[in-house]
Amino acid sequence: MNPTIDLLNAHRSIRKFTATPIDQATVDTLVKAGQAAATSSFIQACTVIQVSSGERRDALAEMAGNQKYVASAPVFLVFCADMKRHQLACDMHDAEMQTGFTEQFLTASLDCALFAQNVMIAAESLGLGGVYIGGLRNQIAAVSELLELPELVYPVFGLCLGHPDQNPETKPRLPLEVVLKQDRYDDSQDAEHIAAYDKNVREYYRTRTGGNKEMSWSEQISGMLVKEARPHMLPFLHKQGFIKR
Amino acid sequence: MNPTIDLLNAHRSIRKFTATPIDQATVDTLVKAGQAAATSSFIQACTVIQVSSGERRDALAEMAGNQKYVASAPVFLVFCADMKRHQLACDMHDAEMQTGFTEQFLTASLDCALFAQNVMIAAESLGLGGVYIGGLRNQIAAVSELLELPELVYPVFGLCLGHPDQNPETKPRLPLEVVLKQDRYDDSQDAEHIAAYDKNVREYYRTRTGGNKEMSWSEQISGMLVKEARPHMLPFLHKQGFIKR
Repeated sequence: MNPTIDLLNAHRSIRKFTATPIDQATVDTLVKAGQAAATSSFIQACTVIQVSSGERRDALAEMAGNQKYVASAPVFLVFCADMKRHQLACDMHDAEMQTGFTEQFLTASLDCALFAQNVMIAAESLGLGGVYIGGLRNQIAAVSELLELPELVYPVFGLCLGHPDQNPETKPRLPLEVVLKQDRYDDSQDAEHIAAYDKNVREYYRTRTGGNKEMSWSEQISGMLVKEARPHMLPFLHKQGFIKR
Repeated sequence: MNPTIDLLNAHRSIRKFTATPIDQATVDTLVKAGQAAATSSFIQACTVIQVSSGERRDALAEMAGNQKYVASAPVFLVFCADMKRHQLACDMHDAEMQTGFTEQFLTASLDCALFAQNVMIAAESLGLGGVYIGGLRNQIAAVSELLELPELVYPVFGLCLGHPDQNPETKPRLPLEVVLKQDRYDDSQDAEHIAAYDKNVREYYRTRTGGNKEMSWSEQISGMLVKEARPHMLPFLHKQGFIKR
């Protein structure tokens, strides 16, 4: 269609990087591109922590479930939803900030995702690759303590960036019919489409792993969703001042 | 830097569109580019509802707080966080899905934002413009009813798209020093940087409105945050099966 859309469609997570470093001017460029994304009511609620300290990197890699590339990637960024700077803005005008609304948690989290996706795309446009690290939420309290996050701030996810040292295929996505609906929510045909898609995903894993893994999308999802999903999240977020009402 | 990064940096919300329509093949291309974004643990939890019915558009425009462009934009998309298809996947394997975790609400919402930002960028790369409509959450229960959203689905935000019929300036963002931190959260210099930024924002509004509006960032934020933020969100999300634990 055009080079930008081709770039978006070519996305795949990169978890193996060459030793080539990324200079700070490039990181600054990427973060500025992130800032250019839309922000809900101009709140600009995303703070990026660039973690360069080897010790902190090692700790984060372990906290994320031993994801070694968190330690070894040339650049590692943590995207934090941040309502603390709004507290500061309120203090500057002797205004009493109302906190704890679920809506604020949502808009700050969405701001981070819009911002981060711009960073990812900007990086990919420079020939870099990356992977989001949701695993930081495995031990979110420990991660927050390590990064010295105050109340009204929480780490949404991390992002590893570097020069790709692997070239994985793109992963097949759900059929458009499942994902794009007209005028109203109608999932009456979804089971059929998902069954067809399951075959594609199974084939994707089969060819990619030389036959060692064969798993459909619905199998993978159902295996995951019978388990608890980070049940510590809500108590942690309450403690940070989020989702209290 | 390069055309893609220039495109990201040139983003501004477009709220006025020419009458030129966008054909369905283009909408499909944009949504497919959205699907190519990263998705947390492959959950693919974003469903897009393209609203073309004039009646539904009028109703949504009013629900969003009388934002006329919701009715008049050539294309209007609603991005829904959708865990219902995961229920389907679990049913296909006689697996009992665990629902209600805050983590699931978060990952599904983030999936939508990553997806939507790809749609926005793909659209802009084609010379289109758009604006996110968080205002759909003003009357989120009515919006959900109109779109016939079942349990485990909720509308995160809308997106108006079309050919720009206005050419607003980009809006100045917070200084990089506020947004990008090194190794740990340190906001000791933020008040100073925000005070300098406040002057830029005030000047931006002054020149843009011919002197009719002069407001700094911290003033705008503090004025907004002394009020309640959509207090109906948490009870609504509970009803849809989200953030129950």
